[in-house]
Amino acid sequence: MRGQTIYFKSEPRIVAGGTVAGPKECVGILGDFVDHPLRDDMFGEDTFEKAERKMLLYALKTAVAKAGREVEIVFSGDLLNQIISASFAARETGLPYLGIYSACSTMSEGMLLGAMAVDGGYASAVAAATGSHFSSAERQYRYPLELGTTRPPQSQWTVTGAGCSVIARAGEGPSVTCGTVGKVVDFGVSDVNNMGAAMAPAACDTLLAHFRDTGRQPGYYDLILTGDLGALGSRILKDLAWEKGADLSNHVDCGEIVYNTVEDEFQGGSGAGCSAVVFNSYILEKLRPGGGLRRVLFAATGALLSTVSSGQGESIPCIAHAVAVERAEGR
Amino acid sequence: MRGQTIYFKSEPRIVAGGTVAGPKECVGILGDFVDHPLRDDMFGEDTFEKAERKMLLYALKTAVAKAGREVEIVFSGDLLNQIISASFAARETGLPYLGIYSACSTMSEGMLLGAMAVDGGYASAVAAATGSHFSSAERQYRYPLELGTTRPPQSQWTVTGAGCSVIARAGEGPSVTCGTVGKVVDFGVSDVNNMGAAMAPAACDTLLAHFRDTGRQPGYYDLILTGDLGALGSRILKDLAWEKGADLSNHVDCGEIVYNTVEDEFQGGSGAGCSAVVFNSYILEKLRPGGGLRRVLFAATGALLSTVSSGQGESIPCIAHAVAVERAEGR
Repeated sequence: MRGQTIYFKSEPRIVAGGTVAGPKECVGILGDFVDHPLRDDMFGEDTFEKAERKMLLYALKTAVAKAGREVEIVFSGDLLNQIISASFAARETGLPYLGIYSACSTMSEGMLLGAMAVDGGYASAVAAATGSHFSSAERQYRYPLELGTTRPPQSQWTVTGAGCSVIARAGEGPSVTCGTVGKVVDFGVSDVNNMGAAMAPAACDTLLAHFRDTGRQPGYYDLILTGDLGALGSRILKDLAWEKGADLSNHVDCGEIVYNTVEDEFQGGSGAGCSAVVFNSYILEKLRPGGGLRRVLFAATGALLSTVSSGQGESIPCIAHAVAVERAEGR
Repeated sequence: MRGQTIYFKSEPRIVAGGTVAGPKECVGILGDFVDHPLRDDMFGEDTFEKAERKMLLYALKTAVAKAGREVEIVFSGDLLNQIISASFAARETGLPYLGIYSACSTMSEGMLLGAMAVDGGYASAVAAATGSHFSSAERQYRYPLELGTTRPPQSQWTVTGAGCSVIARAGEGPSVTCGTVGKVVDFGVSDVNNMGAAMAPAACDTLLAHFRDTGRQPGYYDLILTGDLGALGSRILKDLAWEKGADLSNHVDCGEIVYNTVEDEFQGGSGAGCSAVVFNSYILEKLRPGGGLRRVLFAATGALLSTVSSGQGESIPCIAHAVAVERAEGR
C-alpha cells in the first residue's frame, strides 16, 4: 500500500457487466446500453423492496451469464437497512457471499475488494454488485411517497437500477490496475437533501490521494467518473480540486449522465444503482476496443448517514473509493 | 479457492485485540479479560447509538495501541441501519475504511478480508472491528425498551460491547491460516426471537464446507467457536452436524460464554459484539503460548434480516464465515 492506494499487479479483468434499469432511467442514453430496461419499476413484484432485490439478482445473473464462467465470491451491498437486497439476492444464487456497505460507493468498494480477491490469487472470478430503487430509498430515508412532499432544488433522484461487474484473472476486458481506499470525510453538511455538497469533499479527498499516491496527473485518465454527486456536487468537486491545484476538466458524474431531461430530478441521479448502472453499461461499452475510452478513474461516492444519525443531530460523513480501469495499448 | 475456502500462505498474525464491554457482560469470566469494562453502558454519551459508536472506537484504538503499529485499512461494520457506528468511528480515526455488513458474523468477515489484504501484500497491518449495544439493537430490531415487552424463552440478549483485531504481516500472535466464505442459508425460520435456530443451519453449512475443503476433521481444532447461536442454537448445530457425520463435541458458542448467570438472557448472548468481545479478549488470551489453545476455528454467525423483510413476510436468511486461527508448534 502506497498511501491509500493498492496495486493489482496481475491486472484482473472486468470480463462482463450486467445491468437492469427502470423506465425513467432508460429514456436517455443509458436505454441503449442497459441489458434489461424495465417497462414497470415494480418488475412484477408487490413491494418496492422486492423489485429492488430482483433487479440486483438479474444484474448479477446477467453479468455471470455474459462472462460465461462461474464466480466464486459475490461482493454485494445496497442502501436498504441491513442490505437486504444483496443478502436476499445472494440467497437465491447459493454462492459464497461477502456483504459490504458503503452507501452509494458500494460499486467501487466491491470492485476494489473483488480485484483484491482475484489479484491475490484467492479466486479466479468474482462478482461485485449493487443497486437501488427510487421508491424504497425514498420511503426509508425521507418520506412516504404518498405524502407527496415537495422536493427542494438541490435534491437528486435515486436511480432505480442495478449493476454488476464480473472480475476475473483472465479474459477479455479492461483491467482494474489499482484502487484507492477512501477515508471518511465530513465537512459538516447536514442537509439530507443536498448529498452532492456533502459528498464532494470526500470525492476530492480520494481523487487527490490517488494522484499523490500514484504520481499520476488527472490528465492521465480519459475520464474521471464520480458516482452520484449530481450537477451541483460535481461543480463543487471541480472547485475544491482546482483550489488544491488539480484540474478535473475531464470529470463527469454518473448522476449527470443517467437522466436525459432534467425535470423532477433536479441535480440528477443518485443511489448505489446510479454509478453501478452507468459504469456497467455505457462506460464499460466505451472501454471496449474502439469505444473511445482507454483509462477511466471510477470513484463512486457514498453518504454514510442514517435517519437515526441525522435525527440525533449529526452531520453527514461521506466516503469515496476509486478504482483505475484501463485497457492496455493494442487491446 | 478450494470450494469456499481460501488459504493465507504467509499466515498473517493477529498481533493484538482490543475490547470494551458493558457492566452486565463483565460480571462473568469476560470481566477479567476485557480491556475496558464499563460501569455504565451509556459510556458518558446521551444516546445508546453514540455509546455503541464510542465503544467501537475505543476497541479499535485500544487494539491499535496494543499492536504498537499503524494500521492501513479498517474493515468494520455493525448492526445499526447504514452501519453508522462503524462509519462514524472511522470518521474519528481518519484511516482508510471499508464498510462491511454481515450482521453478527461481521467479526469473522472482517478478519477474513483483513487477512486477505495482508496476505495478498496490499497492507502490512489492518484492523477488523465490530460491536453492538443491547439498547440500540432492541429499539431498532424489536420494541422500544420503554414498552417493557416480555421476552420469550428462546430469545437471546444482545451484547453491549465491541472488539477489534489487528492483523499484520509480522509480529507475535496466532496466525489466520485460512478462511471459509459462507453462503446464505435459509431454513425458513421466521421467528425473530429465535435467531439461534435460524442461524444454526448456516453455521453447520460453513463448518462442513470448511472440513470438506481442507480435509480436516473437527478434532483437528482444540475449539470450534461459533458466534452467537446461544444455548439452543448451539444444540441444534451439534445435532445438525451429527446427522451429517461430524462430531462437534469440541464446539462452544460465544453466546454461552459471555454471561455468567442466565437470568434475563435466556439462551445467552447475541449481537455483533458478542463474538467480537469473546474472541478478542478471552479466546485470544487462551491462544497465547501456554494459554491452552493452539487451533481455533472461529465461525461468527449472522442473521441477515431487517424489520422490513420480516414485515413483508420473509423468513430469515443467515450466514457464517469461518477463519482458522492457529499458533504454530513451539510458539
